Amino acid sequence: MGATQDLPLDDLGMRRPPDRLDAVAMAAYLRDCRALVLQEIVDLLPKQGPYRTVLYDLMLDYPLRQAKALRPALCIATCRALGGHLDVVLRSAAVLELYHNAFLIHDDVEDGSEQRRDRPTLHRQHGVPIAVNVGDGMLALALQPLLDNTRLIGLGRALRVLQVVARMARESVEGQAIELDWIRHGRWDLGDAHYVRMVYKKSAWYTFVAPMWIGAIVAHAGAPCIAALRRFAGLLGVAFQIHDDVLNLTAERERYGKEIEGDLWEGKHTAILLHALRAASAADRGRAIRILGRARPDAGGAVGPTKTPADVRFLRRLIDEAGSLDYARGLSRRWAAKARRALRLAEPWMHPSVHGAFLAAVVEFVTDRDW
Amino acid sequence: MGATQDLPLDDLGMRRPPDRLDAVAMAAYLRDCRALVLQEIVDLLPKQGPYRTVLYDLMLDYPLRQAKALRPALCIATCRALGGHLDVVLRSAAVLELYHNAFLIHDDVEDGSEQRRDRPTLHRQHGVPIAVNVGDGMLALALQPLLDNTRLIGLGRALRVLQVVARMARESVEGQAIELDWIRHGRWDLGDAHYVRMVYKKSAWYTFVAPMWIGAIVAHAGAPCIAALRRFAGLLGVAFQIHDDVLNLTAERERYGKEIEGDLWEGKHTAILLHALRAASAADRGRAIRILGRARPDAGGAVGPTKTPADVRFLRRLIDEAGSLDYARGLSRRWAAKARRALRLAEPWMHPSVHGAFLAAVVEFVTDRDW
Repeated sequence: MGATQDLPLDDLGMRRPPDRLDAVAMAAYLRDCRALVLQEIVDLLPKQGPYRTVLYDLMLDYPLRQAKALRPALCIATCRALGGHLDVVLRSAAVLELYHNAFLIHDDVEDGSEQRRDRPTLHRQHGVPIAVNVGDGMLALALQPLLDNTRLIGLGRALRVLQVVARMARESVEGQAIELDWIRHGRWDLGDAHYVRMVYKKSAWYTFVAPMWIGAIVAHAGAPCIAALRRFAGLLGVAFQIHDDVLNLTAERERYGKEIEGDLWEGKHTAILLHALRAASAADRGRAIRILGRARPDAGGAVGPTKTPADVRFLRRLIDEAGSLDYARGLSRRWAAKARRALRLAEPWMHPSVHGAFLAAVVEFVTDRDW
Repeated sequence: MGATQDLPLDDLGMRRPPDRLDAVAMAAYLRDCRALVLQEIVDLLPKQGPYRTVLYDLMLDYPLRQAKALRPALCIATCRALGGHLDVVLRSAAVLELYHNAFLIHDDVEDGSEQRRDRPTLHRQHGVPIAVNVGDGMLALALQPLLDNTRLIGLGRALRVLQVVARMARESVEGQAIELDWIRHGRWDLGDAHYVRMVYKKSAWYTFVAPMWIGAIVAHAGAPCIAALRRFAGLLGVAFQIHDDVLNLTAERERYGKEIEGDLWEGKHTAILLHALRAASAADRGRAIRILGRARPDAGGAVGPTKTPADVRFLRRLIDEAGSLDYARGLSRRWAAKARRALRLAEPWMHPSVHGAFLAAVVEFVTDRDW
């Protein structure tokens, strides 16, 4: 493990770390973390045996697709910015990426999604039964390295990491339950506060809060430092998800890797769509809600009429007429600005390093990225 | 918790425990354990808050349906037969029941099952998305009490229990992966050894091996005692599943609680069906395999022709002509006899008690029951 200490992560060839990485350096940082984490995930899976082709190879499918691997990078960067070492945090970071990909598989089933990272979703390739089981398998497999963590970081910290993972899983499921309940009951009379509570739990918690909290635990951070970083992570996570919803409607297909306008086809509850519905006339709102109650045409087991391209064009027109994309961009920027201020509160505990500069860069990335 | 020590569990009113409980006493033992475990599960769930109706109430749906609750009873009986106390094992037993019900929800989705415990399956009532999420939520929630276990049984034993749970989850998923792979590739050229390996992992591990192993850990059992009990549990678990498959074709609807012949409609790989296929003529085998490749008519998203009542009658006729039910009954009895011998190896560590008498009774129950 010692060799990993000397990887480019440490200084990216710079003598004095900048306050904030530029886009190129940030992409390099993400790439380096991703390579380390993928190797760790491969090491966690059985290399041979009768279950490899029917189970373990499928667990690698999503992780090996093109992805940012933002979550493990946040975990590693937080730990190292606080003076912790790569070799004690890498396993926890890999577990987070495994959890993330398990959630993605089950989310794709639950949302009836077609594409993930530029390729068909796992349940489109192998059917819902195998996809659900592979996701369960990844959740099961993620437990073992967290137990083995005791040898790496001691009993006390290993248990605290497990506590955060248990809470993360609960928060994600509660957030997902909120949205599934809205879908089931056709609830669209929702404000930004409803939306923020849902994505904070469903998305921000496991994308930002848990990775940074775990990174901080591993680095022996104290309670005030963790409190500041948790606040930063929660605020930035909300900004991230709002911008992600914007990208779903505006990004270039190749860079984004998901189906453009997929959120409209799936009828997802985004801040954008909720804004457009609030701004629409009663007649338009009624028509939009009827459209949103229809399944996408390729959904398995769809009952009743399904959405048409004209339906989706209508939803898009409401969004464009209400200026909902600009509204959401502004919302995302305001949450990111709050996050930027929160990060400053954690600075007393952070050593000047490329890792802290990465965290600072993530704030800009969240609202400026086109991928 | 002290009061639970005085419950009928302790002696069922008998002065000297018998070697083996009779059917009435065994049913009472199961009922007592179930009541305790259900209360513990209710205590684990948030009693109020915004997620109760959309998530936590749904987690109680399957556990509150009529069920034997065999798994927690095995865990409790093992612990107490070895001299452990009820109040230190109850939480782990409740977690096992929670895991079991989470697996059932996902299994029902994966198998496209219609009925569970005499009522529609969760995904038939609430849709696949909510069912998958509720199962994930139960897996997430099960982690916390296992972490809190450290206060109840100390760090060392709590971690060993977690290790067994992690292994249990992996074994179940691997077993499920084997069967899903057989289904996907229409594999029916399988012998008893293939079947046994699959159900040992998919069913025996989490029904018998993990509950008894965990009960033994909590009771401070040593390695030789645990080895004997693991052997007993694995053998009995296989016997149990074979007999369960027999019941699926022979039980009375009301006592069984699942759809009779549901395994044929779903095309499950049972020892019975595999035997019938091996015994059939080449022409009949070919026709049966074509039938088994068809979905059940009510399966969501079914493509191509679906099974008809005549199809299922044909499968049933092959089974009856080959004497496959008697073959499976004999197989189940042989595995149970091996289990009976293995239990004797654990006797040196077991105090004479109603709990040991329950374990002895389970052996007979496994192959004689009609529910």
